[in-house]
Amino acid sequence: MTTLHDELLTMGDAAVEAARQLVRLSAARKNKILAAMADELENRQATILGANAADLEAGRAAGLNTALLDRLQLNPARIKGMAEGLRAITHLPDPVGRTLRRWTRPNGLKIRKISVPLGVIAIIFESRPNVTADATALCLKSSNAVILRGGKEALRSNLAIADALQAGGAKEGLPPHSVQMVATPDRDAVRELVQMEGRIDLVMPRGGESLIRAVVEQARVPVIKHYKGVCHVYVDKTAKLPMALSIVENAKCQRPGVCNAMETLLVHQSIAGSVLPQICERLIARGVEFRGDEASRKIVPGIKPADETDWSAEYLDLILAVKVVPSLEAAIEHINRYGSRHSDAIVTQSVSAWRRFSRDVDSATLYWNASTRFTDGGEFGFGAEIGISTDKLHARGPMGLEELTTYKYVVTGTGQVRI
Amino acid sequence: MTTLHDELLTMGDAAVEAARQLVRLSAARKNKILAAMADELENRQATILGANAADLEAGRAAGLNTALLDRLQLNPARIKGMAEGLRAITHLPDPVGRTLRRWTRPNGLKIRKISVPLGVIAIIFESRPNVTADATALCLKSSNAVILRGGKEALRSNLAIADALQAGGAKEGLPPHSVQMVATPDRDAVRELVQMEGRIDLVMPRGGESLIRAVVEQARVPVIKHYKGVCHVYVDKTAKLPMALSIVENAKCQRPGVCNAMETLLVHQSIAGSVLPQICERLIARGVEFRGDEASRKIVPGIKPADETDWSAEYLDLILAVKVVPSLEAAIEHINRYGSRHSDAIVTQSVSAWRRFSRDVDSATLYWNASTRFTDGGEFGFGAEIGISTDKLHARGPMGLEELTTYKYVVTGTGQVRI
Repeated sequence: MTTLHDELLTMGDAAVEAARQLVRLSAARKNKILAAMADELENRQATILGANAADLEAGRAAGLNTALLDRLQLNPARIKGMAEGLRAITHLPDPVGRTLRRWTRPNGLKIRKISVPLGVIAIIFESRPNVTADATALCLKSSNAVILRGGKEALRSNLAIADALQAGGAKEGLPPHSVQMVATPDRDAVRELVQMEGRIDLVMPRGGESLIRAVVEQARVPVIKHYKGVCHVYVDKTAKLPMALSIVENAKCQRPGVCNAMETLLVHQSIAGSVLPQICERLIARGVEFRGDEASRKIVPGIKPADETDWSAEYLDLILAVKVVPSLEAAIEHINRYGSRHSDAIVTQSVSAWRRFSRDVDSATLYWNASTRFTDGGEFGFGAEIGISTDKLHARGPMGLEELTTYKYVVTGTGQVRI
Repeated sequence: MTTLHDELLTMGDAAVEAARQLVRLSAARKNKILAAMADELENRQATILGANAADLEAGRAAGLNTALLDRLQLNPARIKGMAEGLRAITHLPDPVGRTLRRWTRPNGLKIRKISVPLGVIAIIFESRPNVTADATALCLKSSNAVILRGGKEALRSNLAIADALQAGGAKEGLPPHSVQMVATPDRDAVRELVQMEGRIDLVMPRGGESLIRAVVEQARVPVIKHYKGVCHVYVDKTAKLPMALSIVENAKCQRPGVCNAMETLLVHQSIAGSVLPQICERLIARGVEFRGDEASRKIVPGIKPADETDWSAEYLDLILAVKVVPSLEAAIEHINRYGSRHSDAIVTQSVSAWRRFSRDVDSATLYWNASTRFTDGGEFGFGAEIGISTDKLHARGPMGLEELTTYKYVVTGTGQVRI
């Protein structure tokens, strides 16, 4: 225990020192570092694939299923993809050093609020080794040091990638220890990491709900997280049918395994009789299984009964919970009660229904006549995404580079003192 | 335990329901509520003073010291002060519903980022009953429900004030349970409160370091805190002496018991011989006791020796740690190592020294040729202050009404689906 504790403190100290140096890098310097990281990833392709092959072999021996093995697997195309991802970040604007606000006080003090890096960010993630490159790129672009902790099944791959990033970046002046990967598979490392107040400024867990809950319970440093996406589409009484069909189909079927896919459909009772059979027909043809309340099952007898757990289920699959609601208010109430504050849509021709929905639903992103699938840094035009927050503090919804910064006030005077 | 747990869950549920109703209130309605709260505080003066007298009597019996009793004591002037504080908040702009950013995507989706309330805010504080009124006013103005937990020595006073606020506000449409005070003195209530994920959106502990550390260790909901203010003034080699003297005196002596007062003075070695004796003369005349490193004690032999603990001490008193540093870099290094990321000042005529200082010192507020004492919501022009954050997430430095809001994205489309 003491050894692990000390090992992580040493990493934390090194990251703090790296962060102090990172604030001094210009935007141009950071972009050169990112480009050099990308080149080094490609240069070290053989080493990285070798490490990955060892991970895969160990994974097969440990009985990992095909889906997990696929997520773990790297190949030349995936390595190129990581490198291209790093290069793409060089074209984004620098998120630090922006003047967010400036004003002058009556006593002549000039106050400027400017964006600055957070400092040291810890990313705790599962399986996919590309997270190592993607997260590092965003942290570096925002002048943050990063400590990564990946899944133990990908440890060799992650270490090889992190080494390439640090070594490649160093050629262009990346401070030592700007990118560190926790090398021990010891599960206690996570607890140690998230309790390093003063050394780590933000922890972002990325993975399943149990990982995230464990981090939240143990953390003493701030956490930004995303438990799950229980997204809703509410088809209001004035919805246009073709639009409702198209949005519902897209929100459920276009990519069911992601957090911004719809999990529950709500339909106003006055149109449920005409709309629901058509929705079911269309989605059943796409392979969707419905689980509904009593009212929906009266309209479409083939729907299986839903129980209480269905309303808060994140299926991530071609399954859809469906409920007939008596009013807009009931839809809002349902979403606030069972949703995950992620993304919810209303299909309606009524401006006042939209206003009410967008004001009263307590979610990060609300849509009027559009699919929930647009909640994404790329779709929002952020150029990159480090994650999606279902928290309310600091960052909410898709998180891009700006969300990896904080601010400071710089105040210039001419000798002012307080009276 | 179960009873306390259930009691707090019930309060949490009621607060969530209140928060849902609070988002619907207009700015004008909230201001009427604030005014009615102020009136009711004055109407109930006798009741509040009666409750306060009982607290004071119990406090004396329990042997509270004079300073604590003074902080606890209310009188007609203090009640009027609370009421006037509430009325002043009515004149501030509404922090919710502001459009923070808006843009249109190539597919026609219009995205608007708007400020919205956080939801339910828990404030855990010590002694002064006026916090009940001040914090409630800021939470309500930002459309948040509030759960307050004060010190047990002020429980009767706090309950009387909270009752007046809720009852007065109700006359103008304040939703039930918008303002709730935890009525039990049971210490476990704090732990229960800070673990109510999903019911409480933010906890703000206000008080001594031990209270704050306990909250951080137990919390599962986000916390914004302020451990302490170890603020520095660094007198650089090109500082103008009269300005340095005036800033140092102000930062230490104008109000030594507050978090933005200077606790450590750093002086560049090239001017320490001439500057330090004059600073000491001036401050000793104001009753300041110095604790210095060896170099400073060679210059001013009367200075007591400082030990390692002095560099991170928050004296909140007429005591000043002093150190002679060989360079700007050493000053920055010292502040980053021992400071509390609160407020630090440089006195210099060099623009490049200021640029370096403001970039490299990792604190919420940096001053160039001005006293650290300006770190304050009022002095910044925020109109009100709920606290000062030494955290980096969400809010940093003085926190006004804007910092009690989060944002949501509202996205309007014409049937867009993701391809």
